[in-house]
This record gives sequence, C-alpha cells and structure tokens, in this order.
Amino acid sequence: MLFDKVTIIGIGLIGSSLARVIMKNKLAGKLCAYDKNPEYLAEAKELGVVDEISNDLGKAVENADLVVYATPVGAYGEITRQIVPYLKKGVILTDVGSVKKYSIREIEENLPAGADIVVVPGHPVAGTEKSGPANGFDSLFEGRWYIVTPCSRSTDEAIAKVSEIWSAAKMRVDKMTPEHHDKVMAAVSHLPHLIAFSIVGTVSDLEGYEKQEIIKYSASGFRDFTRIAGSDPTMWRDVFLNNKETILELIQRFVEDLIALERNIRWNEGDKLFDLFSRTQKIRKEVIEAKQEQPEHEKRLLAEIKKLDK
Amino acid sequence: MLFDKVTIIGIGLIGSSLARVIMKNKLAGKLCAYDKNPEYLAEAKELGVVDEISNDLGKAVENADLVVYATPVGAYGEITRQIVPYLKKGVILTDVGSVKKYSIREIEENLPAGADIVVVPGHPVAGTEKSGPANGFDSLFEGRWYIVTPCSRSTDEAIAKVSEIWSAAKMRVDKMTPEHHDKVMAAVSHLPHLIAFSIVGTVSDLEGYEKQEIIKYSASGFRDFTRIAGSDPTMWRDVFLNNKETILELIQRFVEDLIALERNIRWNEGDKLFDLFSRTQKIRKEVIEAKQEQPEHEKRLLAEIKKLDK
Repeated sequence: MLFDKVTIIGIGLIGSSLARVIMKNKLAGKLCAYDKNPEYLAEAKELGVVDEISNDLGKAVENADLVVYATPVGAYGEITRQIVPYLKKGVILTDVGSVKKYSIREIEENLPAGADIVVVPGHPVAGTEKSGPANGFDSLFEGRWYIVTPCSRSTDEAIAKVSEIWSAAKMRVDKMTPEHHDKVMAAVSHLPHLIAFSIVGTVSDLEGYEKQEIIKYSASGFRDFTRIAGSDPTMWRDVFLNNKETILELIQRFVEDLIALERNIRWNEGDKLFDLFSRTQKIRKEVIEAKQEQPEHEKRLLAEIKKLDK
Repeated sequence: MLFDKVTIIGIGLIGSSLARVIMKNKLAGKLCAYDKNPEYLAEAKELGVVDEISNDLGKAVENADLVVYATPVGAYGEITRQIVPYLKKGVILTDVGSVKKYSIREIEENLPAGADIVVVPGHPVAGTEKSGPANGFDSLFEGRWYIVTPCSRSTDEAIAKVSEIWSAAKMRVDKMTPEHHDKVMAAVSHLPHLIAFSIVGTVSDLEGYEKQEIIKYSASGFRDFTRIAGSDPTMWRDVFLNNKETILELIQRFVEDLIALERNIRWNEGDKLFDLFSRTQKIRKEVIEAKQEQPEHEKRLLAEIKKLDK
C-alpha cells in the first residue's frame, strides 16, 4: 500500500482507468472519487472501480494523502481554490493533464504560499477517443510513457511515490521540463488532433455532397480521422487554448507545407510528391520499429467491432 | 469457373489479394500475373497466389478473357498501348484504380476504334498502407464496397461478370458515374491522405525537435497519421495528379476552415472550438454505426504487432 487514502477528481476515461490500476494493485487503503457529473460518479460506484464516491469536493479530498486531478485542465484553478481548505498537511497533488505549463500555474497560483502541499505534475501519454468511466480499462497505460514534469513544489520523494503508481500501470517513466513537454506534445499530439478535428469538420460540411455517402465510404481514409476527432471536446478545447503559442506556430508551419504541396500538384511536380511520400513512408517504418503501435488499444477496437457486427 | 484465363497486371497489395480470391474461389481456369518488378513476380509465384507468371506483358495477356490493371493509374496508357496487339477478341479489361475519369481516358484513348474490346472500370475501395504481394490477403475486400463506373465500352454482361469476382471477394457492389466517384473519393480518401502525408512531413521536419523524441511519443496522435502516410508513394502521386481539380478545390476549403480554427484559438473562442469538436464527435458515432470500422484490417494489425512484440 503506497497511500492511506487517494482521491481522484474526475472519474472519466483516464481517472477511471487509473482507479482500476490502484484497486487491482491495492495501492491505496481507500480510493475515493469525485466528479461534478453525478452519472459518472454513480457509474464508477456501480462498476466498483473505487471504494467510495462523493459529490462534495471538499469532503472527497479530506484526509487524502494523494489527490489526482483527472479533469480537463481548464478546471484546475477552480478545483484548487475549492480544495485548499480541506487538504491534509503533506498531501501530494498530482494531475494527468496534456498541457503542463498552464496546469502547473493554475495549481501553484492557487495554493497558499507557505502551505505544506507537494505538487507532482505529470502526464500519462495514453488514451482512446472514448470518454467516461465505462470506457476505462486497467491496461490502457501498458507500455506507454508517463512524463513527470517537476515544478517548484515537487520533492524527489513525492515524484518517486507518484511514479510508482504509473509503474504499476506498466508505464515507462520519463522526466522533462514543463516547457519541453508542451513543445513535444504540440507536435506529436496537439497539432495532429487539431488537423483531424478540422478535416472532419471540412468534409462533413461540404455542400454538394451527400452526408450518407461520405459515411458509407469513410473507410478509405476519412474514418481514421473521425476516430481522432471523436475525442473529448472539453478536454481538447482546454488543450488548444492553453498551449496556444506553440500550437499557433505549428499550424502556420503546417499550412505553409500544405500550400507547397498544393502547388506541386497544380504544377504537376510528380517527383516532389514522390519524394515527400517516400520520406513519410520511412517515418512510418520508424514508428513501427519503435513499437509505438499499441496492442491494447487495437485489441479493444477489435472487441468493439465484434460486438457491433453481432 | 467464370473465366478461362485471367491476367493480373501488377501483383502488389491489391493485385495479389485479388489473385488469392480468384484462386480460392476457382474463378479462373488459369491465373497469370505480370509485374515490371521481377521481385514481386517471383514472390507471387513462390506464395502460390497465381498459376503462372510472365515478365513479358504481351505474352501474359495472350488468350486472356479478363485482364485486370492493378498498377498505379499513371501506367495505364503505356500498358494499354503495349497489350493491344496481343488481346483476344471479346476480352474484358478492368482495373482497380482510385481515380476513374483519368483511368478510363487512358485506357479508351489507346484502344483501336472498332476493336472488340470491352472495358469495365472499377474501384474496390479497400487497402492497407502496405505494398507488395506478401502483404496481400484474401479477406482484404470483405464487407467493403466495390464501385463500378461504366464507360462507353462497358456492357451489362461484362459488368455482371466482373462484379461476380468482387462479390466472391465478399464486397458490396455499387455503381456510379466516373465523375461522381472521383468527387466522393476526393473527399473521403484523397484529401485525408494528402493531409496525412503533409502533416507527417511537417512534423518530421520541425527544427528544434529531436526526431527520436517525435517517434517515441508518436502514439499520442501522430502515429495514426503515419499509418496513412505510409501508403504507396507512386500510387498516391498518380492519384493526386489525376484528380487534380477536385483535390485543389478541397485543399482550399480545408485551409480556409483550418485558418478559421486558428483564429478561434488565437482569440480564445472556446465555445466555437467546443461546438466544432462536438460536431466531429457526432460524425464519429455515425461512422461507427455505419460499421465502417473494418475487422479484417484491425485483426491483421494486431497480428503484426504481436509478431513485433516477440
């Protein structure tokens, strides 16, 4: 047992998956969940992924040794203000947010200056396009990376304890500055998601097209974008607004490249197209070799398809 | 037995998968393959997916009742010019190209005016990002759509015979004009592929980033684009150059939408982001409900991952 009491705020896909890991590995004496959505809370209780639920945020964190923020990052400031009066001395606050500079600021700025509160900001780089506690599963994190991004309120001891939880979830642990984290994630995660949301919007808005025909033939490419663009709207709104500078910069670079490609097509520059596509094919091979295709996610997709096909 | 002799020109992913279907269902008395790549040809022979191979295009099509073009569409004109002297009277030419207006023109323009040659242009809307005969499999087409796009040289009888092959491959058969086909595919397939190629190029070129770090964290979104951008460079070069007008028009619409989204982020218009992402989430649900997630592809992905993980 790592902690006497753990409280997870936000029992959605990530929160409930983490809860399953904590329960399965008996990492907490008591595991409590709070969510502002009463349905999620009731579902979590029914699914048995936590010991107790509370719709009172203050009570939920009382006596907790570890509090996990697993909500969209836009809610961190308000949550912190609300829980401060109820926090135990020496408590560790940690989070799972996809942007770190902003998350850390929202938590730190709302903590009393001298308070004995430790903060371990982190990001388990895992997820699916699904939301809610019913879609969580304990192997979600398996083989993926947990990135811890220490801040001024972090201690080595607390970092080690929080990392132990993620190791139990079979994650590999990495450490970076919040700035570096946000820069890397902008490229590998935020920009790709933004592009997917954008193209799914464009294609589904095309006048002169039958929407049913678009859906019918979606398996030829469009479908893969809809998967990414099916991700949680609130979470992604908060990510884009709170890693703004880097994302705006990357959109500009992407548009420049796309316009260049458009020009290659217009002027029949087939050799340039071929060169780019050969380069991207090599990148694909590197991704495969780095084993970044994830078995668990694919297995679940398959199970889901089988259910649908019945 | 539907045909005495069938010849497949181009024994890559699609050609070899079709060959497997024809062999398994005994649809041809003899199945012959030609490919300009001697390695592909030898592989096809070794895999036993055809009865015979030939590195002489003329000889390969001699006496064939059905000739299948399964090469990048840019090669159709040259192939047609080369095979015309060897074609049997009443032969049916068919193809699997992803653009139809251009494919039909390249074939028709190179056939002698009065010749007794029937043409059934078509597109089995299926594939993976892999290339080559070793990556083909007979269930590739299962549950997907085959679109036949009749031209002036098509006959109802030939359309029915060719469609029977694809029905044996467990495809559902649909019919459209070549123009409509190219318009729909531009939206659901060509634009998404172009965007994927483009973003993988952008992200892998970013200065100030470690390429290894991009690969390491690719599972958070970028990976899904690399899959699509791992598709055959020659095939896609030919598609983009030969469905040019529609694709250029769609790129413009996409860029407009992306710039609008960029502006929403810059001006903190969170409600607009949320609205778009909620819409795209609905589209995702419609795709799932239309059963456009494909079991076979996912199963193979999984098998491949398992091999890698050993």
